Amino acid sequence: MSPFAHNPALAAFAVACLVLVGILIALAMRTGSVRARVRAVVNPEDPRVYKGASVVEVEHPEVLRVKRAHLNLLENAVPFFVVGYLFALTQPGVAVASILYGAFVIARLVHAYVYLTARQPVRSAVWMAGVLIVVIMAVAVARSLAMSV
Amino acid sequence: MSPFAHNPALAAFAVACLVLVGILIALAMRTGSVRARVRAVVNPEDPRVYKGASVVEVEHPEVLRVKRAHLNLLENAVPFFVVGYLFALTQPGVAVASILYGAFVIARLVHAYVYLTARQPVRSAVWMAGVLIVVIMAVAVARSLAMSV
Amino acid sequence: MSPFAHNPALAAFAVACLVLVGILIALAMRTGSVRARVRAVVNPEDPRVYKGASVVEVEHPEVLRVKRAHLNLLENAVPFFVVGYLFALTQPGVAVASILYGAFVIARLVHAYVYLTARQPVRSAVWMAGVLIVVIMAVAVARSLAMSV
Repeated sequence: MSPFAHNPALAAFAVACLVLVGILIALAMRTGSVRARVRAVVNPEDPRVYKGASVVEVEHPEVLRVKRAHLNLLENAVPFFVVGYLFALTQPGVAVASILYGAFVIARLVHAYVYLTARQPVRSAVWMAGVLIVVIMAVAVARSLAMSV
Repeated sequence: MSPFAHNPALAAFAVACLVLVGILIALAMRTGSVRARVRAVVNPEDPRVYKGASVVEVEHPEVLRVKRAHLNLLENAVPFFVVGYLFALTQPGVAVASILYGAFVIARLVHAYVYLTARQPVRSAVWMAGVLIVVIMAVAVARSLAMSV
Repeated sequence: MSPFAHNPALAAFAVACLVLVGILIALAMRTGSVRARVRAVVNPEDPRVYKGASVVEVEHPEVLRVKRAHLNLLENAVPFFVVGYLFALTQPGVAVASILYGAFVIARLVHAYVYLTARQPVRSAVWMAGVLIVVIMAVAVARSLAMSV
């Protein structure tokens, strides 16, 4: 028996988590492929893996861009994982939960894409959208906590 | 029925999570506001959002300080989220749990404040306090695991 | 009654979490001890804690290495914490779960060790092993989600 059958909001949360982890892994992989393309690594031992690469003191600007996109996702996904899980525990309506989880995932997919392709002001807008969704869920969790006192 | 009514330690954990996520978001927002004040951005496309900003190779020292405070919180909050949740599952006394969760949150609130205002040795002291609280909870979880064998 | 007695996969997951948090804390501590050894800090207020240290604009290369190892673990442990927990909820066989959780922990222990001692290509190999384990668990979660529809 699947544990997600009883709790559709938890199932929606799990789907969102899988997609977000997929973007995190994709950005980590992308760091490696950009490093291989620009042939610049920061660890003296890394040319053993990145053939023909030079050892540099500061990462190549294109590598730094991917790393910023990756860290920005990590910074924003951690609050989502925590607050989104607590929100799922409050057994919200599955429609509302799916919209919030789905909107966050879409916001972060767009954020990763426009970061790598250097577009503004879309990047700032979707970043803020992601934060707002976490705040909305946090308010719902706080209300559930207030009712439990 | 609130899921937190049955498990007061989980409720205390949820409160701590909401405050910590609030500090994470506040530090992320602060990065943006300091960048706007010092008018220095690293992405060539960012002057579209930060009006009048110059594109620099390395972030302004004040921006770097906020980013260090932010990353330090993320590094320490992730272990807290994981170990704190496992600790809540062991159904600890609500008084003990509230003290540990509350002390961690206060330690990290103080850490963020003294990092931004450049004070030592308080910053190192509260950092260590946060780590110790996670270790105490980890020992409690390990004991619960040992009893379950 | 320990909550882990009913769910051996969750117990195995908890053990893995405790070890991973231990490595995270060890790497954070190591950053401090290397900074003390090379006597170079980036915050002007830090010589109050690191006696005799100089204030530098960029962290010492040895400090940067530890910080890269630390951030790399954080980037990879967060997906593990999320997907590993969802995987435990699907009530997998305890043998399979223990192998996957254990292999991830060993991969990341080796990763931290070979990063600090500058060895390749082992570092890239165990990094990839960790990612693969997260992907395998994500596929199992996705299958459980598909069955719950």
